[in-house]
Amino acid sequence: MDMPAAGLADVYRRYIACLNRQDWAALGQFVADDVVHNGRQLGLAGYREMLEQDFQQIPDLRFQIDLLVIDPPNVASRLVFHCSPKARFLGLDVNGQRVSFSENVFYAFRENRICQVWSVIDRAAIEAQLQSPLS
Amino acid sequence: MDMPAAGLADVYRRYIACLNRQDWAALGQFVADDVVHNGRQLGLAGYREMLEQDFQQIPDLRFQIDLLVIDPPNVASRLVFHCSPKARFLGLDVNGQRVSFSENVFYAFRENRICQVWSVIDRAAIEAQLQSPLS
Repeated sequence: MDMPAAGLADVYRRYIACLNRQDWAALGQFVADDVVHNGRQLGLAGYREMLEQDFQQIPDLRFQIDLLVIDPPNVASRLVFHCSPKARFLGLDVNGQRVSFSENVFYAFRENRICQVWSVIDRAAIEAQLQSPLS
Repeated sequence: MDMPAAGLADVYRRYIACLNRQDWAALGQFVADDVVHNGRQLGLAGYREMLEQDFQQIPDLRFQIDLLVIDPPNVASRLVFHCSPKARFLGLDVNGQRVSFSENVFYAFRENRICQVWSVIDRAAIEAQLQSPLS
């Protein structure tokens, strides 16, 4: 049975808090062992590795929920980031410049764990900020 | 008062059908006069213009809903496209090649009309297909 929307919102907010404190030991409470991310079967270990790499590339990374749409078992979230990737990020030479961008991401939950993720990051927004640092 | 989720899903599906038949005279049934798209106050006329340009650039454009998450007054939709932009699209020289990509988009509705849109298109997916036509 699906969890009510309010419960799923709470689970999702606790997942985001887990990411922000880089509490990788707790990640399995929120992410399924066989999780699929953008069509790739990463599994929990691969998912954790992806997140650890994100924090390596972006030491000041912080996940911030801008808009949350909950319709169990699915969650859609608009995340916003204000951070400084230290070198190359998404194929762009950011080199420590502070950039702002969003990620529109959908999740399917199964038994309160994320089992599928479909994410699109607004890479064009980062590109535009690199071209014109004042915008 | 918010419309129930099932009603809003129906409104949204009729909006997508309206786009696919390029029924611009009916667009105002679904889109508010003061609509804002990715932070730009386009208004209904500007929004229509944007869509007309999309169909000019992509004659075989077809909006297809892959995943719909409804939480009134908000809707999140993952759209998939299989189409052939005839020249340049999103700054990429597609030149008639058939490409597949998705758009993760959030909408805020007010009185059954879209008043805000936050859209991210997976431009990187198109880029990857242009680099390696066999993928």
